[in-house]
Parts: sequence; structure tokens; C-alpha cells
Amino acid sequence: MQAVDQLIGMHMQSAVSTIPLLAGHLVASGGKRIRPLICLSVAHMLGIQGKNHVTLAACVEFIHTATLLHDDVVDESQLRRGKASANALWGNKASVLVGDFLFSRAFELMVEMQSLPVLGILSAASSRIAEGEVMQLMSLQDIEAAQTHYFQMIDAKTAKLFEASAQGAALLAVARPEQQQALKQYGHLLGMAFQVADDVLDYANPNVTSGKTPGIDFAEGKVTLPVIYAFEKATPDEKKFWKRTFEDYDQHPDDLSTAQDILNRTGALTQALDQAKAFALQARAQLDLFPHSEFKQTLLDLATLSAERTC
Amino acid sequence: MQAVDQLIGMHMQSAVSTIPLLAGHLVASGGKRIRPLICLSVAHMLGIQGKNHVTLAACVEFIHTATLLHDDVVDESQLRRGKASANALWGNKASVLVGDFLFSRAFELMVEMQSLPVLGILSAASSRIAEGEVMQLMSLQDIEAAQTHYFQMIDAKTAKLFEASAQGAALLAVARPEQQQALKQYGHLLGMAFQVADDVLDYANPNVTSGKTPGIDFAEGKVTLPVIYAFEKATPDEKKFWKRTFEDYDQHPDDLSTAQDILNRTGALTQALDQAKAFALQARAQLDLFPHSEFKQTLLDLATLSAERTC
Repeated sequence: MQAVDQLIGMHMQSAVSTIPLLAGHLVASGGKRIRPLICLSVAHMLGIQGKNHVTLAACVEFIHTATLLHDDVVDESQLRRGKASANALWGNKASVLVGDFLFSRAFELMVEMQSLPVLGILSAASSRIAEGEVMQLMSLQDIEAAQTHYFQMIDAKTAKLFEASAQGAALLAVARPEQQQALKQYGHLLGMAFQVADDVLDYANPNVTSGKTPGIDFAEGKVTLPVIYAFEKATPDEKKFWKRTFEDYDQHPDDLSTAQDILNRTGALTQALDQAKAFALQARAQLDLFPHSEFKQTLLDLATLSAERTC
Repeated sequence: MQAVDQLIGMHMQSAVSTIPLLAGHLVASGGKRIRPLICLSVAHMLGIQGKNHVTLAACVEFIHTATLLHDDVVDESQLRRGKASANALWGNKASVLVGDFLFSRAFELMVEMQSLPVLGILSAASSRIAEGEVMQLMSLQDIEAAQTHYFQMIDAKTAKLFEASAQGAALLAVARPEQQQALKQYGHLLGMAFQVADDVLDYANPNVTSGKTPGIDFAEGKVTLPVIYAFEKATPDEKKFWKRTFEDYDQHPDDLSTAQDILNRTGALTQALDQAKAFALQARAQLDLFPHSEFKQTLLDLATLSAERTC
């Protein structure tokens, strides 16, 4: 992981000083580096030779960082990881352009791996991420649309990059086809668990200490799985509440705590968390065909933790 | 060129309907397709086999379209090619994300060419474009900074993609190293001529019929070559005028026509146009080592026309 951080630090350099400044702000703010950890663990579990898995891990984190920069512009976020977001500090324009820079740098780095199949996987993942983000943007404030598209959308915007991380590392390690398939699936399921748990966390009991500020999805009118489950079994009054707060986007100061009450009382939050845990269990099961090793254990733990996130 | 348009049409498709809608708006609005034309002319001049040059041409146009979408967000432009810009119609958020999508699609298409060297050239060009855009953003309203960085900035934001178009096609056609070098240089010089002429056009006499609305660079406070030349030989009063309108960004209704007067009277506009023509001549000279053909003639004409733009 140190080698990954070094590579990231090296490749975000530019003579245009705003670029390392802005990118460094985000990189230094300490993401969880889960995607690089998947790359490295998969590669080591398969006994990889060489250093290409370190490059892959850096590429994947670059793509992730670029999407965070653009996400914060799209969401008009003022905070990221508890600190002022890059767009809040340097403006939307710089965030858009530095995101483009990091994205291009990711592809420059990919070329160094000299693997066209890995390039194919990562470029396909990138366009799916953008599709997922557009889907989310367009389904805002439409509960019915969100119900139909939710899993498809989180697969695209989140799970695809986890999938590409695991599959890319398997490819670099020249895994057998059935191993590659299992690891691809592992990455997909882990990503699904991760995003559903993230969406649950947004409505977490405010008394629980969490690294996240709850209520952001609600404030932005993003229809996520807890709301979808609550809407399915809503009383007529509750349906009115969800339609007012999401579809009409007419929100009052007490609405977030009302939403949290409904989500807790109806069991929608637990139901969504159970879904995250189910994804995590399925992710773990994909690893059955690999013998035990400390790296496999890391991957198993990552799956479990992804559904039990507190930050 | 028809095959290029077909490929572009095919690869901007997505199940997320906003994407082809928004991308199609820009693609259909009829860009000049100069970069694809360079790819195809170079490839044919060198007697290329296969269809990879068509794919390259589509990739380059995708990258160009993606940067236009992000540029219009950064510049807050309401118009593009005489029509409402995508960000004006669909909003900045969708423009950022669809730009990301097109950019990723460009890389997906590149992988189909199965050429790591071409991928290396295009990914390096993309990160230079982003660097050039950040340079421009940061040097806004600082005439001294702009003077130092102008040629470096237009090389990055504009010329690099022209260079990559010519060099990429030469690589695909397995040109000899000295041919590749000459064509790379041709692309670079053509791009420089193109951008300087574009910057001159922005101050064109409003009586001249032109496809462009003049005065946009001025309104946005972008310091371009005509202003740099005018500032170099400015009287104390003119210096005050440029500092007020660009550095203090304090602009009054009559200022654009005053700027046009100064630029015409001092010969700054002619001097900048002469610089564009000089770049174009140098671009043409790069082609000396190729025998005459209709494709070489197209490349020669493109160079000349790039410095004599009226749109």
C-alpha cells in the first residue's frame, strides 16, 4: 500500500501548481483505499510476479478520485471526508478540470501496464460509472424510476470499479478463467454491499457516532434502498410524506428525523442492511475455490466489513 | 468521413437516454471535424491498410467533444456553434457527466485499435489538455502570467490533440521514425496556427461576417495573443485600459469596441494573424519529405486554412 501511495503521489504531479494542490487535498484527506486493497490482495492471493498490480491499484484510485471530484461538483457538496471539498475551496471549474487530469493520468498509467485486456476492463468500467451517475441525476425526485433502476444504478456507479479492481488484478496474475470469473463476481458483490451499506448509513441513528454526516442523500433528494423499501409498505400518509419530500422536493426542518423514524419503525433500514449483508455473504462465497491464505482472509474481511460500515 | 460519423453515432449510444440526447446535440451541431480529417488524410497519404485510422479519427473527435462539454461548463457558455450549449439546455451537472462518459468511450474505442503506443499518445495528450485548461483558468485576469504562458497553454489545450491525431495516424500506418516526427510536428504547428487564428477571430471587425460571436474571450477576461501584443507596445493610457478590463475585470459596455480599436490601430491583430500564418507555413514545410498526392494536398490546405479561419 505504501508503494501505491508513492505512485499516486508521483503521478499527480504537474508543473501547473493548482493540480497537485487540489488533487493532493483529496488524496491526503485519507480515503479508505479499499479498491487498491482489493487489487493488492487479489494479486498476492494468486501469487503475482512483478509490480503491475501496484500500478493497477494506483490507476483505480485515480479513477475513483476523479469521480469524487466530479461528484462533488454535481452534488454541490461542501464537505468530503469531514473536510471542505475541493470544489468549495477551489471552485467547480478547477474541480472539473483536475478531475479530467486525474482521469487522463489514470489512462497514462494503465498504458504502462502494457495489458490491453486490463485497459479494456478499466475503460469499460469508467464509462459505466459515468452512465450510473447520469442515471442517478436523471432519476432524482422520481421514486418509481428509482425503484426500477436502483440496483442497476449502484452497479454502474459503484460496483463496476470494485469489479474491475478484482478482475484486473486476476488478469494481471494470469488467473484461470473460472478464478477470474469468481473474482470479478466477488468485486461486483462487494461493491453492491458497500453502496447499500453507504445508503443505510446516511439514515443512521444520529446518536450513533459515525464518520459521516447523515441526511445528505435525503437533503439531495436521492432515492436510495431504505426509502424504496419504506415506500413499498408505506401507509397512505407515509406515501404522501415521501412524495412531498422527494418528488415535490418540498422539505421542512423536521423531515429528516421523521424520515429516520419511519425507516426505523417500519424496519426498512434493517431490511436494507440485511440486503447489504446478503451481498457480502455472496461475495465471500465466491472465494470458496481459493485455498486459505492471509490475502484471502483480507478479502473475506473486506466483504464482511463493507456491509458493517460505520464510515 | 462518413465511416467516422457512423462510428461516432454508434459509440455515443447508451441505455441512459440523456447521454445520446446530449452528446448528439453537440455532434449533430456540426463541428468542423478537422482532427478526424487530419487522421484520415495522414493515414491515406501513407497508404494505410485496415480500418484503425477510422477508429482513431472517432476517438479523437470523442475526446474533443468531451473537452467542449467541460469547457462550456467552465466558461459558463450559453452558446456553442450558434446553438444553445448543452449546459444551457441540460445543466452543468449532466454536461460534466456526459463529458466523462464520452471521454471513457474514447478510451474504450482506443482499446479496439490494439495499439499501446497510440493509447500512450492519446492518454498523454488528454492529460496535457486538462493541464492547459487549468493553466488558462488560473492565469485569467493576470496579463503578465498570460504573456509568459500563452504559447505553452495553447500548445497544451489545443495543439496536443492535433499533434496526437497526426502522430497517431502515422504510427498506425507504420511510418518511418523521421516521417512520424515530421507529422507529429505538422500536427503541433497546425494546432498552434488554429488556436492563434481563433484568438484573432474573437476580435474580428464586427462588420466582417463570421460564424463566431466576437468578444467572448474579452468578456471572459481571457488574455490571448492579440492582447499580449497590444500590451507590449501600449501607451500608459492603454496599459491602464487593459489592466482595468482584464486584471480588475471591470468592463463597461463600450470597452469591447475600444479594445478592437486599439488592437486594429496598433497592428496587434495583424501581428497575431502573421504569427498564425507563420505557424501554418512551418506546418506545411513539415510535409516536404512526402511525395505529392491528393491527401498531402488536403493536409497542406488544412494548414493554410487554419490560419485564415472565418469560423
